[in-house]
Amino acid sequence: MSDVKEIKVMSNLRTANEIQARDNRHTLEQVFVCNLLGSPGAGKTTLLERTLAELTARAKVGVIEGDIYTTKDADRIAHYGVPVVQINTGGGCHLDASMVAAVLPRFDLARLDMLVIENVGNLVCPADFDLGEDIKAVVLSITEGDDKPVKYPLIFRNSKAVVLNKLDLAGFTDVNVSKLEQDIRAINPEAEIFQVSCRTGDGVDRWCDWLLSNLKQTGTAPNIN
Amino acid sequence: MSDVKEIKVMSNLRTANEIQARDNRHTLEQVFVCNLLGSPGAGKTTLLERTLAELTARAKVGVIEGDIYTTKDADRIAHYGVPVVQINTGGGCHLDASMVAAVLPRFDLARLDMLVIENVGNLVCPADFDLGEDIKAVVLSITEGDDKPVKYPLIFRNSKAVVLNKLDLAGFTDVNVSKLEQDIRAINPEAEIFQVSCRTGDGVDRWCDWLLSNLKQTGTAPNIN
Repeated sequence: MSDVKEIKVMSNLRTANEIQARDNRHTLEQVFVCNLLGSPGAGKTTLLERTLAELTARAKVGVIEGDIYTTKDADRIAHYGVPVVQINTGGGCHLDASMVAAVLPRFDLARLDMLVIENVGNLVCPADFDLGEDIKAVVLSITEGDDKPVKYPLIFRNSKAVVLNKLDLAGFTDVNVSKLEQDIRAINPEAEIFQVSCRTGDGVDRWCDWLLSNLKQTGTAPNIN
Repeated sequence: MSDVKEIKVMSNLRTANEIQARDNRHTLEQVFVCNLLGSPGAGKTTLLERTLAELTARAKVGVIEGDIYTTKDADRIAHYGVPVVQINTGGGCHLDASMVAAVLPRFDLARLDMLVIENVGNLVCPADFDLGEDIKAVVLSITEGDDKPVKYPLIFRNSKAVVLNKLDLAGFTDVNVSKLEQDIRAINPEAEIFQVSCRTGDGVDRWCDWLLSNLKQTGTAPNIN
């Protein structure tokens, strides 16, 4: 088959995804939606656990867990007493807008302030697929090395927030955290950068405060009950 | 567009890749080819640097570096005085057999014992694309967490060797390395598992000896120049 055919089909797929993402955005217009991205093992689920422990008293949060096969992450999140729905892609390397649309009816959206969608662990493909979110946030473990923003720029360019995780290990590695921050700022000068350790909890409060500052001020999503 | 059309095109793409991979395997029949996989930041390039430092006196090694945009990894590898060719995928999340075929003429294959292809950092998509290699080997940093084999089983099932890297950080994390090994063995009982620290060099010798034991005994790939 020719390259042209491949490109054409990819283009159709993208268009279909964009249309569905727009519909999702409309459905979710009262809810602040964060698409959480990062490599396998960057610490997305642990960040989410820490975030829920801090936020559930202050906002109504729902979670969509994207994974290839297992429900391991959703099982962890369920302990926090929030509505959580698992999407298994069955081999697929990213979530798309239609997968999200299929599970939205499982949430009582009128009672949610915030929906966090934890994407499949992958620093490449998920950056390209709009799910209908308000923001993308990328989690990068500093143990992944300080060359990652330059090597995988798209996901850093498309993310409104970058969470640098596992700062507790910085002293045991050769990673230059200042260089990491500089490189992120060169790619995306507007990005909010958070330095955290999800293991110790350090820095997670600032990230949580920032998330809360993004909630939509509609008055239709009650924080009580 | 319908799901059916998408599946059909993917199937065509796979078939085209398989045909090209078979051709590559034929072209490379005198050369032991290792397709090196793993997440961003698992330590693939550092493992390769350690491997080259140990192997270049014992075998003729060539390297193909797969990256999305930069030549950073190829620049690092070039210091070891081995033939290295960079493939930039321009956004693509994995190498495919046609990309490899396009650069093979840049090597003097009759003078190579071994070709290492470092794939794009991604624990999902590269597992699905045969490049014409003899073996896949996956590098997993223990800082990625001990749940990764269960969550990303395909790449562990398809790899003949698993290199557990960053063992020097094990004591500073909550990772259970024994569980990690058990889970890998449950998915792939035949896998060779190596525990290494590419930072200190510990364990890399065993991995290098194993690589050498895979060289093809054709007598056509001289180790002397």
